[in-house]
Amino acid sequence: MKNALGREIPDEILAGGKEVFQGQHHRDGYQYTKDAPRIRANVKPKGDKVLPSIRDAIIASGLKDGMTISFHHHFRDGDFVCNMVMDEIHRMGIKDLNVCASSVGKAQNSLVSCIEDGTVTGLSTSVIRDEIGEAVSKGRLKNPAYIRSHGGRVRAIETGDVHINVAFIGASTSDAYGNASGKGGKSDCGVLSYATPDSEYADYVVIITDTLVRTPNFPASILGTNVDAVVVVDKVGEQSKIATGILRLTQDTRELMIAEYAAKCMAATEYFKDGFTFQTGGGGTSLAVTRFLRPFMDAKGIKMDWAMGGITAPMVELMHEGYIRKLINDQAFDVTTVKSVHTDPNHFEITAGQYANPFNKGAFVNQLDFVILGALEIDVDFNVNVVQGSDGLLQGAPGGHVDTSAGSKCAIIVTPLIRSRIPIVRDRVTSVTTPGESIDILVTDYGVAVNPKRPDLLEALKKTDVPLCTIEELRDTAYKIVGKPKELEFDDKVVAVIEYRDGTIIDVCRKPKHLN
Amino acid sequence: MKNALGREIPDEILAGGKEVFQGQHHRDGYQYTKDAPRIRANVKPKGDKVLPSIRDAIIASGLKDGMTISFHHHFRDGDFVCNMVMDEIHRMGIKDLNVCASSVGKAQNSLVSCIEDGTVTGLSTSVIRDEIGEAVSKGRLKNPAYIRSHGGRVRAIETGDVHINVAFIGASTSDAYGNASGKGGKSDCGVLSYATPDSEYADYVVIITDTLVRTPNFPASILGTNVDAVVVVDKVGEQSKIATGILRLTQDTRELMIAEYAAKCMAATEYFKDGFTFQTGGGGTSLAVTRFLRPFMDAKGIKMDWAMGGITAPMVELMHEGYIRKLINDQAFDVTTVKSVHTDPNHFEITAGQYANPFNKGAFVNQLDFVILGALEIDVDFNVNVVQGSDGLLQGAPGGHVDTSAGSKCAIIVTPLIRSRIPIVRDRVTSVTTPGESIDILVTDYGVAVNPKRPDLLEALKKTDVPLCTIEELRDTAYKIVGKPKELEFDDKVVAVIEYRDGTIIDVCRKPKHLN
Repeated sequence: MKNALGREIPDEILAGGKEVFQGQHHRDGYQYTKDAPRIRANVKPKGDKVLPSIRDAIIASGLKDGMTISFHHHFRDGDFVCNMVMDEIHRMGIKDLNVCASSVGKAQNSLVSCIEDGTVTGLSTSVIRDEIGEAVSKGRLKNPAYIRSHGGRVRAIETGDVHINVAFIGASTSDAYGNASGKGGKSDCGVLSYATPDSEYADYVVIITDTLVRTPNFPASILGTNVDAVVVVDKVGEQSKIATGILRLTQDTRELMIAEYAAKCMAATEYFKDGFTFQTGGGGTSLAVTRFLRPFMDAKGIKMDWAMGGITAPMVELMHEGYIRKLINDQAFDVTTVKSVHTDPNHFEITAGQYANPFNKGAFVNQLDFVILGALEIDVDFNVNVVQGSDGLLQGAPGGHVDTSAGSKCAIIVTPLIRSRIPIVRDRVTSVTTPGESIDILVTDYGVAVNPKRPDLLEALKKTDVPLCTIEELRDTAYKIVGKPKELEFDDKVVAVIEYRDGTIIDVCRKPKHLN
Repeated sequence: MKNALGREIPDEILAGGKEVFQGQHHRDGYQYTKDAPRIRANVKPKGDKVLPSIRDAIIASGLKDGMTISFHHHFRDGDFVCNMVMDEIHRMGIKDLNVCASSVGKAQNSLVSCIEDGTVTGLSTSVIRDEIGEAVSKGRLKNPAYIRSHGGRVRAIETGDVHINVAFIGASTSDAYGNASGKGGKSDCGVLSYATPDSEYADYVVIITDTLVRTPNFPASILGTNVDAVVVVDKVGEQSKIATGILRLTQDTRELMIAEYAAKCMAATEYFKDGFTFQTGGGGTSLAVTRFLRPFMDAKGIKMDWAMGGITAPMVELMHEGYIRKLINDQAFDVTTVKSVHTDPNHFEITAGQYANPFNKGAFVNQLDFVILGALEIDVDFNVNVVQGSDGLLQGAPGGHVDTSAGSKCAIIVTPLIRSRIPIVRDRVTSVTTPGESIDILVTDYGVAVNPKRPDLLEALKKTDVPLCTIEELRDTAYKIVGKPKELEFDDKVVAVIEYRDGTIIDVCRKPKHLN
């Protein structure tokens, strides 16, 4: 069955009652009873919850073949927790598990052998990269992987589409009763935003930490009242890979030009006024946009009410300089941010649900004025692919892309027109992550295209000196320089399902023929 | 049917599947699926949630005859919210409502007329006093009231025994998206601990505030993602009655003697060591215990890890002086505490569930070493009544009494032996709120009795100079001085059910014959 974007969704994917994608607001007003965990009451005081090992916690949890377990990614490339747990599960011979992760990449590569031997047969994630991306692309996982946005993951958990039996939550610090935090300790990651829904909706919750602190470990991101067991290990992560020292501040003139165009576009809109709200990613161009905003804000004498998202040092600096009133943090990308979220009184942690879940009573993405986002590919209908490389490999991340673009008043894609001789703007994206209706402006090094659904923005941008053109003109330019991209050939096998944030199916990824 | 304490529980009370009380740990390990709200997804950004009036919010909520609504009591005697809402509901002619309140007293007296005319036919609360207590005692409420402890209320909400359709939450401050707090504003109450479960489990949540602040209002006790509507009114409360200036520091020699005995008892136990944990109430004797602890702590060179509960100025002072490492706050009783919970970095708000719910994975009461509690009556089996006056009137509060005594290692009752010529220690309490098995020591002005189930404590106390005796001796002394109390006569009509924290029925209150 074809969805609203003309993407063919195989019947077997829809068999369980799934709907095809029908527009970004299709399910607005959807009424449902939230899912809830099945738990055991601790009426009688029993002392602390510390168990001697991960194995003991797995046994105590009652984990069995076919169940769903979860992990978060706040330790980023430095994460030891997923591998420690999966290695133990592997040794115990538990099979056919469904892994609900907020992100998987090289730090979680023990999942690859677990996928190969059937320990893991299902996987859902908001980011998929490296060896795991390759294994899934090759069809090694028994069931298709589910790629969900950050908000979509929480939606799936809160609606019960995914019911987590056991959540394994790495924490920088915890007390012996499970009040856990991303703050402090040997493996300081700042926040635990993505793990909070897991702690609230999983039947059994295990905290794994290397730094046990005095009770109560407040403020806590994970409440001890939701935690069954605490395991203390030597190290939950490698600090140098959890938060990098300094993110690259680009000197690339092409990136700087794109960033300056994007800042000019923002400043030309009606939303650029005192109290505006903003999110951007951690890429070089995105960071540069943040820097270019200063003079425009000075000129108008305005401040941001808040900036949100994966927070980086340039944002923290803007707050310190008085340009931003508050920071709302769901990921801490660098050591400056980790430090700031512990100490700056106007820098706050939010949960993934507060950030982006489309099915609560209004996530913060709904209050965004501007978001700056990247793209692996974008088609002439402004549909964006951020999941699948142009070679068909799963090497990307919907992350908050889908959520912020749907929620914000002005979603701006910043990308070079051509990357490694691959045209980014094209007739058709390999797969759709974010529907074109969510995207307002595309800024490239060869020109700026406004989505035709936003004539108001086009009018506003005409007052600037940014080089306006149509998206078709950008495509033509790209094709003229590097040629029209060859159609990739795929097998029939669906290796991954791209679920839109509301649970409808926006696209599927099939196994590329060239991969074996 | 008689329960474990020999109290007769009428069959009609048990008809809905309720069990009789069978011991404080009877339901330990009880497994259940948590209740969950039925909500409407806000996928599409719609701007803020501010509605023009309480009436508009009631209409938007879809409130109908027979539904359940909720209120909290953090504005204490200064609360305007309950009356404003009930007056509007009354005008709208909605009938047969069940009110789930955390406390009702004189500030909520519009409930009385609502009870009289059938607007309200059901009531559950953790505190019942004043005119409402009298109306319920007289049998004016159509259905028996349910008296629940603070923890029991959250348990009832989280298990679905009570499903709140619409929660009306007064907040000192809120932003236009419902991120709400007890901090700041014109009606500053410090914390909103008792309202957090309502916000998480009610289908529709209305914030009522007099101080709308810039988004985001962080840290928030109530998350905007759980809030449907925000109403701004002129005033939500009378500041002078929300937090009193200074609580009475007793000069009464009898109270001081009791307090000193209690402190000596504490200091003699094995739990009195560095890192101990403590809760006490706001009564004169309880506050005095806190003051008497200093020299004992100095002598041993120890500190408390934390003190919890309704926090008062003497606790804040102890923390400032270095005797207490952290304060855990579920109610702010005075202006010193309100100020401290906003500013002291080691003073933390917790929810009512974190505080006392027996059916989560371990509430903080389970970590308590000591609690100091009062009593209206205590019988020779150490059963305590804190709900019903000896005249049969509902004029009391289980509050956290039941929860803290069940959770703590050493629960100490402090009370004069005789109050207004009424013997407090007696053969039989008018009704049981807290089972004797939860109580360890009774301290009176005529001597100290240890529960026979705690020979270890009796041994420890023999090393002190407190006047030890049996509880029967205390009863005899009381009876000798003021005579044996006359048995009150009651009608058959059950006016209130005293539900134990785990949902079993510990006692019922019948209509006293002398009331009409």
